[in-house]
Amino acid sequence: MIQRPSLADLNSYWLATNYLSAAQIYLRENPLLQEPLRPDHIKPRLLGHWGTCPGINLIAAHLNRLIVNHDQPTLLITGPGHGAPAVLSNLFLEGSLGERYREYKLDGEGAKNLVRDFSWPGGFPSHLTPATPGTIHEGGELGYALATAFGAAMDNPDLLVACIVGDGEAETGPTATAWHLTKYLNPKRDGAVLPIVHLNQYKIASRTIFGAMSDDELRDLFHGYGYEPILIEAHDSENSADERIPVANHREVANAFDQAIDRIQKLQRRWRNGEGEPRPRWPVILLRSPKGWTVTKELDGERIEGTHRSHQVPVEDPRNDPQHLDALDRWLRSYQPETLFEEDGSPKPSIIRWLPKGARRLGMIPEANGGSIRKPMTIPDWKQYELDIDRNHRGRETASDMKTTGEFLRDVIDNNRGRFRLFCPDELNSNRLGATLDASQRQFVWPTPADDPNIGMQGSVFEMLSEHTCQACMQGYLLTGRHAIFPCYEAFVSIVDSMMGQYAKFLKRSDEIEWRDQVSSFNYLLSSEGWRQDHNGYSHQMPGFLNMLLNKKAQNVRVYLPPDANCLLSTIDHCMRSTGKINLVIASKQPMPQWLSAEEAEEHCRNGLSIWDWASSPTDETVDVVLACAGVYPTAEAVVASRLLRQTIPDLRIRLVNITDLLILEQQSFHPHGLNNEQFDHFFPPGTPVIFNFHGYPSAIKQLLWNRPGHERFRINGYIEEGTTTTPFSLLAANGIDRYTLVDQVLCAGAIERPELRERCVQTRTHFQDVREEMLRHAQHNGEDVPSFTQWEIEPLANAVQGDPI
Amino acid sequence: MIQRPSLADLNSYWLATNYLSAAQIYLRENPLLQEPLRPDHIKPRLLGHWGTCPGINLIAAHLNRLIVNHDQPTLLITGPGHGAPAVLSNLFLEGSLGERYREYKLDGEGAKNLVRDFSWPGGFPSHLTPATPGTIHEGGELGYALATAFGAAMDNPDLLVACIVGDGEAETGPTATAWHLTKYLNPKRDGAVLPIVHLNQYKIASRTIFGAMSDDELRDLFHGYGYEPILIEAHDSENSADERIPVANHREVANAFDQAIDRIQKLQRRWRNGEGEPRPRWPVILLRSPKGWTVTKELDGERIEGTHRSHQVPVEDPRNDPQHLDALDRWLRSYQPETLFEEDGSPKPSIIRWLPKGARRLGMIPEANGGSIRKPMTIPDWKQYELDIDRNHRGRETASDMKTTGEFLRDVIDNNRGRFRLFCPDELNSNRLGATLDASQRQFVWPTPADDPNIGMQGSVFEMLSEHTCQACMQGYLLTGRHAIFPCYEAFVSIVDSMMGQYAKFLKRSDEIEWRDQVSSFNYLLSSEGWRQDHNGYSHQMPGFLNMLLNKKAQNVRVYLPPDANCLLSTIDHCMRSTGKINLVIASKQPMPQWLSAEEAEEHCRNGLSIWDWASSPTDETVDVVLACAGVYPTAEAVVASRLLRQTIPDLRIRLVNITDLLILEQQSFHPHGLNNEQFDHFFPPGTPVIFNFHGYPSAIKQLLWNRPGHERFRINGYIEEGTTTTPFSLLAANGIDRYTLVDQVLCAGAIERPELRERCVQTRTHFQDVREEMLRHAQHNGEDVPSFTQWEIEPLANAVQGDPI
Repeated sequence: MIQRPSLADLNSYWLATNYLSAAQIYLRENPLLQEPLRPDHIKPRLLGHWGTCPGINLIAAHLNRLIVNHDQPTLLITGPGHGAPAVLSNLFLEGSLGERYREYKLDGEGAKNLVRDFSWPGGFPSHLTPATPGTIHEGGELGYALATAFGAAMDNPDLLVACIVGDGEAETGPTATAWHLTKYLNPKRDGAVLPIVHLNQYKIASRTIFGAMSDDELRDLFHGYGYEPILIEAHDSENSADERIPVANHREVANAFDQAIDRIQKLQRRWRNGEGEPRPRWPVILLRSPKGWTVTKELDGERIEGTHRSHQVPVEDPRNDPQHLDALDRWLRSYQPETLFEEDGSPKPSIIRWLPKGARRLGMIPEANGGSIRKPMTIPDWKQYELDIDRNHRGRETASDMKTTGEFLRDVIDNNRGRFRLFCPDELNSNRLGATLDASQRQFVWPTPADDPNIGMQGSVFEMLSEHTCQACMQGYLLTGRHAIFPCYEAFVSIVDSMMGQYAKFLKRSDEIEWRDQVSSFNYLLSSEGWRQDHNGYSHQMPGFLNMLLNKKAQNVRVYLPPDANCLLSTIDHCMRSTGKINLVIASKQPMPQWLSAEEAEEHCRNGLSIWDWASSPTDETVDVVLACAGVYPTAEAVVASRLLRQTIPDLRIRLVNITDLLILEQQSFHPHGLNNEQFDHFFPPGTPVIFNFHGYPSAIKQLLWNRPGHERFRINGYIEEGTTTTPFSLLAANGIDRYTLVDQVLCAGAIERPELRERCVQTRTHFQDVREEMLRHAQHNGEDVPSFTQWEIEPLANAVQGDPI
Repeated sequence: MIQRPSLADLNSYWLATNYLSAAQIYLRENPLLQEPLRPDHIKPRLLGHWGTCPGINLIAAHLNRLIVNHDQPTLLITGPGHGAPAVLSNLFLEGSLGERYREYKLDGEGAKNLVRDFSWPGGFPSHLTPATPGTIHEGGELGYALATAFGAAMDNPDLLVACIVGDGEAETGPTATAWHLTKYLNPKRDGAVLPIVHLNQYKIASRTIFGAMSDDELRDLFHGYGYEPILIEAHDSENSADERIPVANHREVANAFDQAIDRIQKLQRRWRNGEGEPRPRWPVILLRSPKGWTVTKELDGERIEGTHRSHQVPVEDPRNDPQHLDALDRWLRSYQPETLFEEDGSPKPSIIRWLPKGARRLGMIPEANGGSIRKPMTIPDWKQYELDIDRNHRGRETASDMKTTGEFLRDVIDNNRGRFRLFCPDELNSNRLGATLDASQRQFVWPTPADDPNIGMQGSVFEMLSEHTCQACMQGYLLTGRHAIFPCYEAFVSIVDSMMGQYAKFLKRSDEIEWRDQVSSFNYLLSSEGWRQDHNGYSHQMPGFLNMLLNKKAQNVRVYLPPDANCLLSTIDHCMRSTGKINLVIASKQPMPQWLSAEEAEEHCRNGLSIWDWASSPTDETVDVVLACAGVYPTAEAVVASRLLRQTIPDLRIRLVNITDLLILEQQSFHPHGLNNEQFDHFFPPGTPVIFNFHGYPSAIKQLLWNRPGHERFRINGYIEEGTTTTPFSLLAANGIDRYTLVDQVLCAGAIERPELRERCVQTRTHFQDVREEMLRHAQHNGEDVPSFTQWEIEPLANAVQGDPI
């Protein structure tokens, strides 16, 4: 039996949420003003943001009305996450807060606790967090609410995702381009997004851009983006009986919301009946309302309501300034709390009786706790895609690791339609995952050329040249219980450094919330790495994302550098099954030598690192020098270097250790994958020099190895910001991770470790230094790489070198 | 005497630039096809991007026409920086390339070298770089061209900045919001930006969003942004006499450009005469043209021209495939090189005679080599703003470091109008630089409320809630020879991690170019740090930008953590005078204790670190434990800890070292500011334990200290991703950088260093552990901070503690 709310119901509810929002910011005692307000009722530290609260409360009231009237499952994403008091007030009154947390149950005690605990140490913070029911987006760092909403709506045909976008947030780049996302939304198969632009003209202190735009400009802009804009100005009602009590023009606001849902339903109906028009125009509500609406109009001779002065704590010092105390008292009493709450402090039944029930409540929509509805993927056996390895000639055959994984992912798509997507900012083809397009088109609903078979109305592939949009969409998709991978150029993933950092915070906090279930991991698959940016050069060389990840909570981050195709298959398989993590996988798209069989790769990946016997000196005894390597290019160079060394000075005992799970380097006490000291010493015997050839900035290895004793014995090579358009070999050489530099470093260490080989080492160094110079001259002269670089025919090359007199 | 080009001139010039662009990608020999084309004429590695070249060439031809016809100083910013072959062709023909580089002088030899060296090791790379004359933007990482253009135009009233925006780049967030920048451009005092959206429908392999939009959608969108859009479709002319020779519809294209310049001139004239209309509508040219235009129409049965297949190297294998060789031959000869170039290979005079001359050439506009026209700022003596320090009670007085610096910057603005700006994404007031608004309004030309005095048509302050836009504008402003500071919330500067990384690359490459003069440094002034985000909490705590900076080239980066107001003044003064760097300054906005007089601060900042005798044990002898600190909060905690320790166990010899220039920690061989080992040992005596209390992630210190011997003796505290809305003290404690944790760590080390004090140390540890617990309980219970935390009345607190029995 549906209880449709009247306009009066909406206003009472709005007053109650406004009251609770303001009370949370100010009161530690006397939460319902049943006593005269005294300074000691005020919190000692006044924290929070009032300015956005009344608008959020208005939107929430009208959204609840839609939910009730249409029985519409609705997820709310609140861009202005600093409006937490508003959201919490709504969650309290609908009872979901109390359902998640006993201390906030829907009664007088709960109301008192809610008011008192807000912004208090241990209580709800001043922003939305994973602790807030119904939340999949904090809204702390602005810009991503809208794209997160679209990600949540994808493949969720019955869901409505309402998204509040503040006019401050609307100024950000990520939001400005996210408006295009309706061009990717299929009204038949996907859900709907209802954006509500919350225009209240001011940021912290300054005018907003959108606040300064005319109605015509706003209409044109959103028309241009492809929407049907619905402009509505919310204001005090002229029909108010008592002008001291705030009454909003609910009829007009309700009409705007009705118009929006009507348009959405018609659009979906037509598309689902096969009558959908091209370029579907979804509604967007542009809601103007006064900033800090219903607060004191003026204080200390300055306007408060409708200005930036209402942004945070509008009445600044009620504890010490009697005028402020009086202003606060009048403001709070203007909502007439005695009409909203019972004597015992619980809300009057009339205020809340019409609200949505059960899973229709904003705080209880299952999609906002995605882990609770997540189903594991159907993943084919990755070993079916194994590349054959000739164990007698490892490295002789080359293949593109990414291409191999593309075939695996093609079948993953096929087995998981409607719950698995690839979000890719710079095109799957360019990252050599083109095979996936055999299983799925790129979904794009705007008209496209007829001769392009890989683009269409429906598909598991999302491509847009916006790392921000891809990241936020994928967050929305994962947090609502689905699965995804983010293939990306390595250099440009740093564009989302800060987004990843915020997402890591979301995961960390989620882990602390008992009722929140783990969602699928966020899987970054980086390719088109800096070491082979032949067409692009220096700007496309930036491996620092990895460093950012290492600063996050150990429980939530993993970094994998699979050295070949079979290891990449095993790694991706693992990542797709994992939950609650940010997995960073860095892989190569160029044809590169292949080392391990599927069986070996599985073992190698399970351990995270291995001694590669076949690339080490044949000895069980003391090792003279360890060649450690992580990453496709550093590994290949290390294998060649080891071979050159073993062929020229067989007496020098070299061990090659490949690391595929970078965090095994961290100490066990810092990271769950970290080796204990005994294990570490097994691979890197104490006192033995280690030449570490690394894919990224050396700083990453320095911070990981910091707590290991005897760090002077580690020499770390990596990317040192040298680059331009040049040959692959010259680029490796410029950064000192090439085979000859490694040979030189090993010989240098070897000469000290093994005095009897000193002379031999010195001679050999000179020889290989000459070879290196010759190779660089060759590249310079012929505009091509060293012979056989990409084919990695190690033996002929090594033989040639060995054949030279040294 | 102006030589206005005819339409035929434009087409011949276009053919010549197209020819040279294609030749650069393909030919190592026979650059003008004077012999039959053979496989060995083809470069061994074919690198580069053809797709965007013909469009860039068309735009450049028509821009040159405007420059000549209007004698208009014009700076070109090319968003599709991967179209370097096109830009280089134009620079070669106008002679600027030859003026900068002898080997590319405007003759046959120069043409041959240009064609041969492109993408060759040591030659011009496939993207624009600082080596390219006329370039202030690489266009490698997409998204920032447009805002860079606006920054270049600010305070440059005579300049036209033309900006090509690819339809790929247009999908990025930063570009999508940068369109709003006309709302910040004052037609009276600033220059003009002419954006040209280069719509050719495809990215690497996929359709572009803008390519799929209808004409109406495009017009509405740009109307909404506030522009007057001029749509033009470039195509093969129907009037072509010989259909094998490409001829473009130049008349229509020229009309579009005329319309644009006409509108710009009228708009500027009216505003400069005081008749400017509100909401000035600037033109934007929306230019549709076929991708890869004029290339082979079809090859191997697939369409090439007008599709994504022309993006990079459209004819893939002319070295080995005779059909491809033939296609390439026909394509190149379609431009009829014999009509464009003399026998000796130099361009025919008729092709180039009409081009702009001297400083009007795109490659020679002085603003593109900003260092050459940069004038140092007029900076008042910073000591005028000194905060008085009572040397007998250091730390007793508190002040906001940022506020003090705001007064300094107010006068800096006053002395440098029109050549100094603040670019601030999250409002100067919020970062406590409000004093600057006494000297300058926030510039914003769209209508604003009459009652806001701090916003207006003209000012030195730029505020927009978009870190991307602020960063790109500031780059454009600096690179054209001016000065600026970027005040920003610390947590959100990570939004521009990757932009900073790209800018660091630009500076590094610039240093290698002889003719490029150094521009003013990019000064980040970070505040609203994570340690005091009372209103916001966990999402506002992210100090990782510093880590990213440390991975850049040492010559270009500096990191300063001034501990108080006088140090901040000295640091900012230094940064505003410096050139060629990225200076990162992290400062506090909350009232915090003040330590050093101006004179002491000057000395401290000059040295980069000092032993603070007044906060250390009175001893010249051996030190038991060094307390090192960097950053305002870690320093304050360290000073209090030292005092607590000295009062409770006077026999323990403690040295407090404050570090204000973080890079002195790096080794001298790695960074010019690095201490040599002798200097380092002076501050941190070998074998002495060091407790390092750091502002950011501990990883930054780990990587800096990596190469110092005996790293086991360093214990590093910092931000470890613990946070929520809580009291300041609880936040410090949660991350283990609070005074009591420091006391504990020092006592722990002291007990080992000084066995005779062992028992005393152990007792004292227990006592302070209890105090710490008590303080945390206090915060939890009372919702307020430990007593006197913000006032830092050290003595009463310390006495109270000392008075307790232990």
